[in-house]
Amino acid sequence: MTKKNLIDCHNRIKPFIHNTPVLTSNQINEMTGSEIYFKCDNFQKMGAFKMRGATNAILQLSDENKKNGVVTHSSGNFAQALSLAAKSIGVKAYIVMPSSATEIKKTAVKGYGGELIECEPNLKAREKAANNIAESTGATFLHPSNDIEVILGQGTACKELLEYNDSIEHVLVPVGGGGLIAGSALAAKYFGKNCTVIGAEPFEVDDAYRSLKSGKIETNETANTIADGLKTQLGDKNFPIIKNEVKSIIRITEEEIIESMKIIWERLKIICEPSCSLPLAAVLKNKETFRNKKVGIIISGGNVDLNNLPF
Amino acid sequence: MTKKNLIDCHNRIKPFIHNTPVLTSNQINEMTGSEIYFKCDNFQKMGAFKMRGATNAILQLSDENKKNGVVTHSSGNFAQALSLAAKSIGVKAYIVMPSSATEIKKTAVKGYGGELIECEPNLKAREKAANNIAESTGATFLHPSNDIEVILGQGTACKELLEYNDSIEHVLVPVGGGGLIAGSALAAKYFGKNCTVIGAEPFEVDDAYRSLKSGKIETNETANTIADGLKTQLGDKNFPIIKNEVKSIIRITEEEIIESMKIIWERLKIICEPSCSLPLAAVLKNKETFRNKKVGIIISGGNVDLNNLPF
Repeated sequence: MTKKNLIDCHNRIKPFIHNTPVLTSNQINEMTGSEIYFKCDNFQKMGAFKMRGATNAILQLSDENKKNGVVTHSSGNFAQALSLAAKSIGVKAYIVMPSSATEIKKTAVKGYGGELIECEPNLKAREKAANNIAESTGATFLHPSNDIEVILGQGTACKELLEYNDSIEHVLVPVGGGGLIAGSALAAKYFGKNCTVIGAEPFEVDDAYRSLKSGKIETNETANTIADGLKTQLGDKNFPIIKNEVKSIIRITEEEIIESMKIIWERLKIICEPSCSLPLAAVLKNKETFRNKKVGIIISGGNVDLNNLPF
Repeated sequence: MTKKNLIDCHNRIKPFIHNTPVLTSNQINEMTGSEIYFKCDNFQKMGAFKMRGATNAILQLSDENKKNGVVTHSSGNFAQALSLAAKSIGVKAYIVMPSSATEIKKTAVKGYGGELIECEPNLKAREKAANNIAESTGATFLHPSNDIEVILGQGTACKELLEYNDSIEHVLVPVGGGGLIAGSALAAKYFGKNCTVIGAEPFEVDDAYRSLKSGKIETNETANTIADGLKTQLGDKNFPIIKNEVKSIIRITEEEIIESMKIIWERLKIICEPSCSLPLAAVLKNKETFRNKKVGIIISGGNVDLNNLPF
């Protein structure tokens, strides 16, 4: 992936996405001893950075493929992102979701114009349902994180952040399926000035931390984390980029996730998902590393069930 | 109050305040049929527009008076605003608060450097305590809303909004003590193009609605509203401006306040106080009036106790 790939991708998706605002907080800076720039993709269309990658992946399809639509299986933000991106571009989206997904999520997908297909709540059933749709309709399967076009799209958040302030020294992002951190690492490489990318991952789902140590893709036995956007694991498209470009991954406890989420809500006055709070938790538990540094943090999404908060 | 007064005030306070972002939401626009620009003063320093007026009022004191400090009685955002503004300018702030105020509020005032003086939880005790301090220290008493310099300061939020988009046709603001709506009315008059200012007030504390009808300052018998920032009433400095410049005041039920607050949290992904949601409720219940209009809404503050939400 070259610098030009990322520039072309950004130009391609610009008409469909927001260049989201960057917020700062004197109180959080005092608390951490560093200078933090929060790139607020919770204000992105449909409420998460996933809109970027979904848009790029659809726009990169051939006209022939666009006619047949796209399909994915997801119970998270990628389902909504693919629905809205497809609608904006004029393409049909089939979304396979486990029947156990919340009504809020099902309604959101339908609200954005996606065609919802429910299946049994296990990975095999999801994959099978998506395959069936791809075969019967000719729709292209798009993966939420292990897809080069998706990775490039996700990288545009970090690109915008470094265009906002190119003296940022570290960019911290949460690690789930690996699309955001791989894209951010490419953006930091091409648009930063010696800017390093660091991941933040729950102790409970630390496959990326272990993968970076062992040099091969590790899996998770369980995924007991409140950060529901981070329960997924790395893939063969994003791991090579992560392995080459990401400096380190910091693991975060569940208590630290909730504590830093509350700090963001209270001090920045924004609604963000538990997943978004891991980078701030990483700074808070490594104050010496980040002291007096300019730190960028990508707030990845804001789709939260307000009736089910951890505080 | 002239256009020049407002321009001078804005230039004076600019080094001490944020020009806060303006957010929009396609979903809310679809829901209302209008084009809404949310001016997010929940992102203002200390989390509310009150920072603007407090800063201007202190900066307008003589050097002699600055030496003796400032005093107010408030259990709300003005207490925090005066504390932080005074600290930023290098002036002492005495804050009289009822002993019944929450620990969060007391801690916030002390955190911003204000000297907290507790008193019995009634208006008489508050006024007496503030008077005693003014007499013994020579500190200048500053009122949260019924003060010309405070009113001018509060008007800068609307001025910034109209500088962001000068084709906004209506600006809607919540009405409490009257400082924000009076200042906004002046800003709309001087910086808008036929822009009208409309208030939104709880049915439960509708003194401003009744005052506009009767032509004289009316009082409230009770104040049973969740919008705790709006329990106060108009004063002799702001009412003449409101009477001349404000088109109308729309009354909102408690259910409508909570419902529109939830819409703002869910769709805009921002944390705002119940008071902030009244303008959106006013648009939602008067869709025909605002259909296809460009509407500005001032999100007045974001200091919410996350452990005590209405949903």
